[in-house]
Amino acid sequence: MNENPSNGYIYGKNPIYEILTNNPKRVNKIYIQKGFSYDNRMKKIVELAKNHKIIVQNINLQKFSNMFDENVNFQGVVASVSSVEYVELDDFLNNSKQDDFKKLIILDGINDPHNFGAIIRTAAAGGFDGIIISNHRACPINATVEKISSGAINHIPIIKTTSLLSSIDLLKKQNYWLIATDMKAKQNYYEIDYTDMNFALVMGSEGSGISKTILNKADFTVKLESDFESLNVSAAAAVIIYEAKRQIALKNKNK
Amino acid sequence: MNENPSNGYIYGKNPIYEILTNNPKRVNKIYIQKGFSYDNRMKKIVELAKNHKIIVQNINLQKFSNMFDENVNFQGVVASVSSVEYVELDDFLNNSKQDDFKKLIILDGINDPHNFGAIIRTAAAGGFDGIIISNHRACPINATVEKISSGAINHIPIIKTTSLLSSIDLLKKQNYWLIATDMKAKQNYYEIDYTDMNFALVMGSEGSGISKTILNKADFTVKLESDFESLNVSAAAAVIIYEAKRQIALKNKNK
Repeated sequence: MNENPSNGYIYGKNPIYEILTNNPKRVNKIYIQKGFSYDNRMKKIVELAKNHKIIVQNINLQKFSNMFDENVNFQGVVASVSSVEYVELDDFLNNSKQDDFKKLIILDGINDPHNFGAIIRTAAAGGFDGIIISNHRACPINATVEKISSGAINHIPIIKTTSLLSSIDLLKKQNYWLIATDMKAKQNYYEIDYTDMNFALVMGSEGSGISKTILNKADFTVKLESDFESLNVSAAAAVIIYEAKRQIALKNKNK
Repeated sequence: MNENPSNGYIYGKNPIYEILTNNPKRVNKIYIQKGFSYDNRMKKIVELAKNHKIIVQNINLQKFSNMFDENVNFQGVVASVSSVEYVELDDFLNNSKQDDFKKLIILDGINDPHNFGAIIRTAAAGGFDGIIISNHRACPINATVEKISSGAINHIPIIKTTSLLSSIDLLKKQNYWLIATDMKAKQNYYEIDYTDMNFALVMGSEGSGISKTILNKADFTVKLESDFESLNVSAAAAVIIYEAKRQIALKNKNK
């Protein structure tokens, strides 16, 4: 076996072909040695990576040796893999109980592992039901994300999708409402009722915010007012997650 | 001059004696070369450091060379200093306008620079009036703290005190109420009214929580419920800071 789960890498053509065929969502990135001659198996690996929108990077032998254990026979190819078992949105929706409202978070272009890990932890603490990330615009789940999430990564489903837009369309068909944070919104985040709907809350990166195509699909846009620049994205997520939790707790208390 | 503000170190006996005399709160830590013979000036430095509860660490020449620019004539002593001008609690209280309620955060043993920087940023965004830290149980303000705070470090007064307990006593005499977070509290954080009092919110470290002596002085203890372990301290701070901001905004709207 060339697999080494402890450091999150898989070495060699056959193991990588296998995981690309059976569980491509676990693959974060593929490294191929520069100048290595491609046989059919290697061509197939590149083709599968392309189909699943996985980045393939060519690096030279020296860099390989710096990155990976030299004694491994990596046959010119190494895959960086996640230790997390991602969930398919279809499976998540099919397995969801219909008796209570669901709360999801969609991360649009959050690349910083600290923010990603922090949001996973707070979402689990806040009783959210899942986190949706994009296959190609997201931070891979690495050791930093796992550490910062404080283990929450294994307590809340991580739903990985090749297209956030089509996932949003699917969610809308299943009676989910889309809430997006936007500094230009008119409504404050605490002015909407989180207690009587399935919803997905989209958080964007601090640099570029939420993609315009996603913002256009939002049923609600909400703002967080600030006396000093904008909030950090994981702080903003914590505020909204706990506002939803607060509203739900008060509603249950008054039942 | 031996001062180098960009990296936060001051080299040499005279400059360090000066800052210890005139602005001791800016000094985070003092490093003295092992085996260096103490003249009167060096003895005075150690004595001043002790009086201000500043840690003095003895390190060998090799470690000095690794840490600092070799070409500097450091005369056996280097001080790590903060670029921030700390505020005295007395001055803060004397300069506070009496026409609105004040909101402070007290950090009790928060050593992680990410959490410290994140709380500073969120407190500034949430319109809080100051942050109180302890001289000897706090994370020094270093480059990480400044970066994570996103510049907020210069937009909210940082009040450094040699004793959190005596600062709390002083605050109480000035009509401040002390709010402490505690997992065992009966009240939820959103069940108290943040709009009609001066208050100081104490946040403790994730490992050891708030010191018992401080907890005993709390007028309110509040909890944040969680479905997965406890919240990260900077996420918890964000939730409470924005709950206070939400209540105040609603009150002002209804005036």
